[in-house]
Amino acid sequence: MIRIAVDAMGGDYAPEEMIAGAVDAVKENQEIAVLLVGQEDKVKEKLSGYTYDKGRIQVVNATEVISTEEPPVNAIRKKKDSSIVVGMNLVKKQEADAFVSAGSSGAILVGGQVIVGRIKGVERPPLAPLIPTETGVSLLIDCGANVDARPSHLVQFARMGSIYMEHVMKVNHPRVAIVNIGAEEEKGNALVKETFPLLKACGDINFIGSIEAREIPHGAADVIVCEAFVGNVILKLYEGVGATLISKVKSGMMTSLRSKLGALLVKPALKDTLKSFDASRYGGAPLLGLNGLVVKTHGNSKANEVKNSIIQCLTFTEQGINEKIRESLETASQKE
Amino acid sequence: MIRIAVDAMGGDYAPEEMIAGAVDAVKENQEIAVLLVGQEDKVKEKLSGYTYDKGRIQVVNATEVISTEEPPVNAIRKKKDSSIVVGMNLVKKQEADAFVSAGSSGAILVGGQVIVGRIKGVERPPLAPLIPTETGVSLLIDCGANVDARPSHLVQFARMGSIYMEHVMKVNHPRVAIVNIGAEEEKGNALVKETFPLLKACGDINFIGSIEAREIPHGAADVIVCEAFVGNVILKLYEGVGATLISKVKSGMMTSLRSKLGALLVKPALKDTLKSFDASRYGGAPLLGLNGLVVKTHGNSKANEVKNSIIQCLTFTEQGINEKIRESLETASQKE
Repeated sequence: MIRIAVDAMGGDYAPEEMIAGAVDAVKENQEIAVLLVGQEDKVKEKLSGYTYDKGRIQVVNATEVISTEEPPVNAIRKKKDSSIVVGMNLVKKQEADAFVSAGSSGAILVGGQVIVGRIKGVERPPLAPLIPTETGVSLLIDCGANVDARPSHLVQFARMGSIYMEHVMKVNHPRVAIVNIGAEEEKGNALVKETFPLLKACGDINFIGSIEAREIPHGAADVIVCEAFVGNVILKLYEGVGATLISKVKSGMMTSLRSKLGALLVKPALKDTLKSFDASRYGGAPLLGLNGLVVKTHGNSKANEVKNSIIQCLTFTEQGINEKIRESLETASQKE
Repeated sequence: MIRIAVDAMGGDYAPEEMIAGAVDAVKENQEIAVLLVGQEDKVKEKLSGYTYDKGRIQVVNATEVISTEEPPVNAIRKKKDSSIVVGMNLVKKQEADAFVSAGSSGAILVGGQVIVGRIKGVERPPLAPLIPTETGVSLLIDCGANVDARPSHLVQFARMGSIYMEHVMKVNHPRVAIVNIGAEEEKGNALVKETFPLLKACGDINFIGSIEAREIPHGAADVIVCEAFVGNVILKLYEGVGATLISKVKSGMMTSLRSKLGALLVKPALKDTLKSFDASRYGGAPLLGLNGLVVKTHGNSKANEVKNSIIQCLTFTEQGINEKIRESLETASQKE
């Protein structure tokens, strides 16, 4: 049985959707047990509305809640009985294999490092969301809070991301690329120029060179390596341009009687196609390189994404991703 | 009369579309004279197919062409008789007020600095394209080739961008923001943290703080300040996500008979709406801070964008943008 702690209190639709997602996950897969972390009374009350295997969902009390507005370092330090801190301690004490939260990104990033802790040899744990592409999804690594990365960090990101895509997402020989402003090796800023030859020298990854941002949505690489500032810009612009264009398309269809009629006809087909351009169905963003697994799901996650994030943890644990990361970094450091 | 040199040889549709754009520009505005720079025979032959005011279009011979594949520094140094070098020399010698090219970005950036030269006090000339937003356009400054900028560069970008948006694009008190990974002043990488208080202290711009990439397409600021690596990622991802989504929408409409019928009905309205999300109708990207004006238009520019880029040069010159930049930087340096 894989035990997954779920933050019942984090996210725009907590606790309802978090609880619904947990119930769906234990129904869909018999190997999953969920520890719902949050204010016991509230959680139990909502939970009582569902029928499920009582032996596989347990409520763990946590009286406090960390809001997205709170400064993360402070929140983690002071709110010892918050759902995030309690959930992460379950992972630390190995009472849970993973922790899923839709709460404060900052608190999750800080808590992951401070409470769960890094795998020996990992310099920085990257946050690695999946982003939709024309052909499927790519892993964008790093979108975390630690900006101004060094070349050695990026090399570790490439290795960890490659392992994740190969064993969790089942991509054979995942293509690894570094975000750059041109395809040539001599292009780029100081960080990219220094990192490029290091990645090229890695025998254990399928490094295909630079990727220009324009090529990312086409699915030109499976693992997109960049430092967190750039990763953040990519992730958020992706969402922003997508939302703006979709709203433009919608309003465009409402401009005349003729187009309104057409909109009724195209709507179902369009909805299906655009759903394929939605990475959330694959689950949340793992914080890689920790002694355990922490997954950040979107703040606006509903039951389905929560369920997918829980199932993603199952694959991660079953595939022994952390052991593979440990081995990979050990082998790399022995070679140096 | 404002004299604008146009690179007849640069771009995917040169010389045809460059020439057509030049002819359209002199027809639309009586104050414009165009110097078409390129291989004389070819240009004159194409030009002979049009009727126009012969006194306002002149062909300047340049026997060589710089391709987009050539290393820019080398190309500028060696191809002295290329359309880019000849066109920029016209600006340098004040025989033209501006130079418009759809050719090699790298060569245009290098040529601008090396041949046309910077305004005294300008540390780096930024390339500043307009990007479409929900409400209009914003200026993204810098998307040039000089990465790893310093805080003082970004402050100059903010000033120059603000002047451009106010006087060329007619935006009152343009809102200036710096690209960041969160809204709070303490967030960001080293460059942003150092630059933020400097921008805040500028009395001559309307600095509104940080902007997250997600907010850019909503039009949350008029001048988007960032260093060139990040600017390049934003610009190219904008294009990439846009192209991918539009192709998804199109293919979604073709999945069933019902949706195909609907597509016929929505198509005209949709086309109009999406046209409003196209920055190219405003012209090309100016390379600011030069002794003269150099405008880079898209490599795939057709006549209409070329014409708009030429007319943009007219406004730039008439509004005395370079004098305003010079004054602004002088005032700023006196205060320091």
